[in-house]
Amino acid sequence: MQELRKDPVTDRWVIVSTERGARPTDFESLPPRKAAQLCPFCYGFESTTPPEIYCVREAGSAPNTPGWYVRVVPNKFPALRIEGSLVREGVGMFDKMTGIGAHEVIIEHPDHQRRFWDFSVQDIERVLGAYLQRTNDLKRDIRLRHMLVFKNEGEQAGASVAHSHSQLIATPVVPKRVREKLDGVNRYLSYKERCVYCDEIREEQRFGERVVFENDSFISFCPFASRFPFEVTLLPKTHRPDFSAIDGTERTALAEALRVTMRKLNEALNGPQYNWIFLSAPTRLSGRESWEDFHWHVEIIPRLTKIAGFEWGTGFYINPTPPEQAASYLRGVAGCGSPGLD
Amino acid sequence: MQELRKDPVTDRWVIVSTERGARPTDFESLPPRKAAQLCPFCYGFESTTPPEIYCVREAGSAPNTPGWYVRVVPNKFPALRIEGSLVREGVGMFDKMTGIGAHEVIIEHPDHQRRFWDFSVQDIERVLGAYLQRTNDLKRDIRLRHMLVFKNEGEQAGASVAHSHSQLIATPVVPKRVREKLDGVNRYLSYKERCVYCDEIREEQRFGERVVFENDSFISFCPFASRFPFEVTLLPKTHRPDFSAIDGTERTALAEALRVTMRKLNEALNGPQYNWIFLSAPTRLSGRESWEDFHWHVEIIPRLTKIAGFEWGTGFYINPTPPEQAASYLRGVAGCGSPGLD
Repeated sequence: MQELRKDPVTDRWVIVSTERGARPTDFESLPPRKAAQLCPFCYGFESTTPPEIYCVREAGSAPNTPGWYVRVVPNKFPALRIEGSLVREGVGMFDKMTGIGAHEVIIEHPDHQRRFWDFSVQDIERVLGAYLQRTNDLKRDIRLRHMLVFKNEGEQAGASVAHSHSQLIATPVVPKRVREKLDGVNRYLSYKERCVYCDEIREEQRFGERVVFENDSFISFCPFASRFPFEVTLLPKTHRPDFSAIDGTERTALAEALRVTMRKLNEALNGPQYNWIFLSAPTRLSGRESWEDFHWHVEIIPRLTKIAGFEWGTGFYINPTPPEQAASYLRGVAGCGSPGLD
Repeated sequence: MQELRKDPVTDRWVIVSTERGARPTDFESLPPRKAAQLCPFCYGFESTTPPEIYCVREAGSAPNTPGWYVRVVPNKFPALRIEGSLVREGVGMFDKMTGIGAHEVIIEHPDHQRRFWDFSVQDIERVLGAYLQRTNDLKRDIRLRHMLVFKNEGEQAGASVAHSHSQLIATPVVPKRVREKLDGVNRYLSYKERCVYCDEIREEQRFGERVVFENDSFISFCPFASRFPFEVTLLPKTHRPDFSAIDGTERTALAEALRVTMRKLNEALNGPQYNWIFLSAPTRLSGRESWEDFHWHVEIIPRLTKIAGFEWGTGFYINPTPPEQAASYLRGVAGCGSPGLD
């Protein structure tokens, strides 16, 4: 079982494994990469994962067999589990709760070799469809307060399986960084009576120099205070607290915006390792807190630099590439959302 | 020149390079390690660093020549510079300021091969002496608000030079994580009328199971909500906001506590890469804010796991090793602060 523990100073929650912990020798070397033919996310290995929760597959193909286009399964080594009850308790001065939550894997494409930037708009729409269905389903569980969809690509970005996939973790507490963003949105709102993200869209459009890509519904840009070189934020132009409320037109536009942005990053950085995260408002908050004013968005972080002591100690990042320059490189490569490309 | 920029949502400050930015091709591969004979921190290469600011050396040896025991120089590629004036200004909706600050390198020992855990108590006392002298000197600069001493050991931990060294960065703003800790301390104080770190010391002594090492003045333990496997916090038993105020007895006790803790980590984890950070109260705050209630401490973080999308997105860490188990391993290895060891 896992357990959630709260840091008494910063209110940060941490998931701690309580059953068999990793021993010192477990860390000595990185796990060997699985050969492609043994990949648990490839056709023919469906029985090596837990049974699928959601799937888009060829008509007539049976569950947990080949023939799928996108497939969602519970994580075999979950950080949090859906089974059990949520118990909150104190341990001396400290606070903890049981490790209730959900941890799912979205296997994005049957082709082991294909990276996200090789996907067609339709492939990406299917992936987004899986995100939406799973988020909306898990929202019904009243124990859960926040859902995070994220993607780790490459070993440096924390991926342990090479086959293109993303993950969803639903937590029974609002994670610290989400709360910080929510607080920031509310602070700006009470001072300016406007949404900080809506203002940021207008400001980036006005300056132009940090914009990477824009269509009717989405804009991607290298943020003014980028923590990392070539960091990109993707914002929906329609103010909505929650990704899971987007409509069909927006889903297509999002697929295009993600595709072009990722293709540009791939071309400029030669296939970088990266993380992305879909940040939405919490689904439930306690007491008087409000989440309606959040503006959901995607953060894309190429993993090009190492995080060192200074960053850990201060939360203060050193970024060697001005975002204006990064955006200019990204605008300069074709990346090519041109419809003729596929 | 570097520039400081503030994220409008989270109030996080970031240091952005504005002169020549790193281009996409700069990230393609890791820089090759320098061979030991070309190390800029070794005897005979003193002229390859900027001139020394502080040094403990053999009587009669000239500055910037061999004969030193510990040597502090400005960073050749500083994140922030002491020259210039601090200008704060707006750019549309955004905020920035000039990259004023200090970035120094503490070269801890002349021997290129010797890691921190090989140092004698006297070696460590000299390193701590350098930290103290530099912090107290920089405190006099009224533009600076916070000083962070940190150490990156190993490439995964962000070190670019293998020779044992640590760094000091002084910033003109209070970094986000420091402010969070300060806020947490004040929140606990106003609720309990006690220091949260003083309470934590008593609690860890009472439980015992997370304690790694203890002497008259210091205690090291794996914190209850450890973010990382084998993470260790080192706390002074005397409540003081600022590391730079410790006295001679405490300095010796700190050298011993650091030495034993690091030797234990080395023995248990087979020479891990790691970061440590010395966290003190800001030296200056604006307006009504108070810093007197902070309790300075050291965070030691072995770099055994990768930080992935989930952690970035949420500030929510998944730790595979219960801190009770990590502490038990660390207590179980000799590590050996025994005086006969050297």
